[in-house]
Amino acid sequence: MSDMGHDNPVLVELTRGTTVESCHRGAIAVADAQGERVLGLGDVESPILPRSAIKALQAMILVESCAADAFGLSDAELAVACASHSGDPVHIEAVRSLLGKAGLDESALACGAHWPISEKVTAELMRAGKHPLPIHNNCSGKHAGMLASAVHLGLDPRGYERPDHALQIRIGRLISEICGIRLSPDHAGIDGCSVPTWPLSLDALAQGFARFATGAGLAPARGRAAASLRRACFAHPVLVAGEGRFDTVAMASLAPSVFVKGGAEGVHCAALPELGLGIAVKVDDGAKRGAERAIAEVLAALVPEARTSLAGELEGELANWRGMRVGQIVASADLLQALAALETAARRAETSASSIV
Amino acid sequence: MSDMGHDNPVLVELTRGTTVESCHRGAIAVADAQGERVLGLGDVESPILPRSAIKALQAMILVESCAADAFGLSDAELAVACASHSGDPVHIEAVRSLLGKAGLDESALACGAHWPISEKVTAELMRAGKHPLPIHNNCSGKHAGMLASAVHLGLDPRGYERPDHALQIRIGRLISEICGIRLSPDHAGIDGCSVPTWPLSLDALAQGFARFATGAGLAPARGRAAASLRRACFAHPVLVAGEGRFDTVAMASLAPSVFVKGGAEGVHCAALPELGLGIAVKVDDGAKRGAERAIAEVLAALVPEARTSLAGELEGELANWRGMRVGQIVASADLLQALAALETAARRAETSASSIV
Repeated sequence: MSDMGHDNPVLVELTRGTTVESCHRGAIAVADAQGERVLGLGDVESPILPRSAIKALQAMILVESCAADAFGLSDAELAVACASHSGDPVHIEAVRSLLGKAGLDESALACGAHWPISEKVTAELMRAGKHPLPIHNNCSGKHAGMLASAVHLGLDPRGYERPDHALQIRIGRLISEICGIRLSPDHAGIDGCSVPTWPLSLDALAQGFARFATGAGLAPARGRAAASLRRACFAHPVLVAGEGRFDTVAMASLAPSVFVKGGAEGVHCAALPELGLGIAVKVDDGAKRGAERAIAEVLAALVPEARTSLAGELEGELANWRGMRVGQIVASADLLQALAALETAARRAETSASSIV
Repeated sequence: MSDMGHDNPVLVELTRGTTVESCHRGAIAVADAQGERVLGLGDVESPILPRSAIKALQAMILVESCAADAFGLSDAELAVACASHSGDPVHIEAVRSLLGKAGLDESALACGAHWPISEKVTAELMRAGKHPLPIHNNCSGKHAGMLASAVHLGLDPRGYERPDHALQIRIGRLISEICGIRLSPDHAGIDGCSVPTWPLSLDALAQGFARFATGAGLAPARGRAAASLRRACFAHPVLVAGEGRFDTVAMASLAPSVFVKGGAEGVHCAALPELGLGIAVKVDDGAKRGAERAIAEVLAALVPEARTSLAGELEGELANWRGMRVGQIVASADLLQALAALETAARRAETSASSIV
């Protein structure tokens, strides 16, 4: 069993009154497509499980296999294939549509069911005395994309989610190549939605996202697949998550400079096409509030517009049940120091590049 | 701003496949009524915010002031005054009844509203197109107890929740005396339900709970008040939390050997009357799953029956949306080592006490 987060630094703190009430440790990697490490804060070499943060990488097969073209998938359908969606009508429609184009319906989904992330839809289901269906599962778009890929590849879609299914083996190989790291099937875990999740270091994830950002380091067809998925997500940020959620808010205002995607257990990744960089964050304890604040800080350091777009996240006000301000979520001194150095280095690189005659 | 959790040890890990996916650091104190430290794992001296873990201590005023006697409060009403309740009908009835006996109704509650912890009640409210009321707030029983205390003490109940209200000042003094630590009003935070929350070390909390456990170290009237609250909670474990929740499950089977109460941001405390000990846990990142597993381990080390009663928590199986086993929550090596030493010391003390002629 691999050790975890060897004394990772505190990235984010929660204050209430004059007390630091809670804190979140973790690690952050920023890299370019060649794997050059631009930032390594904490343990960026030990493997972590990326969970939903890599849905777009898992969705590459859908485009690269030409399934997307063959089935005439729209950008909306590609976006939901990369999504951890809220289960709103727009998401459900896109998933059904994707499945329909592949000649399937939602009975093929093996993701399991949970109450949709959307409180509105949950309330409607409860009001109607209904229970959620697999299609409400935030991963149903990813699964629809996987099913469509399997069908196009001439594979039996039954058991498509199993680690020994040819589709998952191909997806694993794709991720391995994009991230430049050997994946061991023996070490794969099972995700919440039943597909495999492979251990990857933050360094490798950052490199993978840098390559996803621009296509650099990828074969042309693969680079075009990445471009298609980026374009689709940038065109439909609401479909990638949902109204008011971090990834949607960020991409709605920062596309096409920022592609960003979170995953369970405090994972968050981003691809920055204009800078050719990838970012990978893992919060040791798995807290979403820690990961979202941490990646917001990294984005703000690298993409000035992000400081405005993510102002709410960066202010981090905590309110209680009566709406009284009771505390704040703040970036740690260690994180701010590391990012100040990053911001300086980024500006130097920009100046240096523009001074080459 | 006080620093937090100076490199606290990992207490609990979450594994998926062969990877340690996430981990929770924190600190644990176990002490007797004299403040003698029986276990100090991690930083047990820096202040933390105890949140709802100390509701029973906040409720002491209700009994000690004789409000409980004057209003003829039942054990059910005393239990809900100590509760972080699920908002089920039994809880709502007990809170309404308590308020009624003090000549008040739920319009006096200043805790704010949130969807009840009970999914069933939430579904019913949604189905009826309703929104939750302050009485559904998990803290409404605590607030009802505070209101009743204020009325009995002849204080204006309006503003009872404010830090400068005479009631809160009295409660603060009571907690300060029980825990043997000076509280500074300047450092109080505001809780989720709007009442003050004071910074206390885990050492002080453990001592406070050891005194609450037996009355040792407390003036006789205060000791009797503690006994009344213990008795009430032991008689009505469902009212202190709710069906299926940790504190209810633990006390339903372990009363009267264990009084246990959790609080937001990963705090969990326990009072062990037969051993004369108090336990205080704080998980750095605030995660309930970390705190519940940690205190379950401490209870199992000190109270053999707890290993059976809390078997589900101690097994820590993680299942995904399709009910497949995908991982496990486990105690860390550091925690197990510290508790093995505790268990040995406890058995030695027991043997030594029984060998005194």
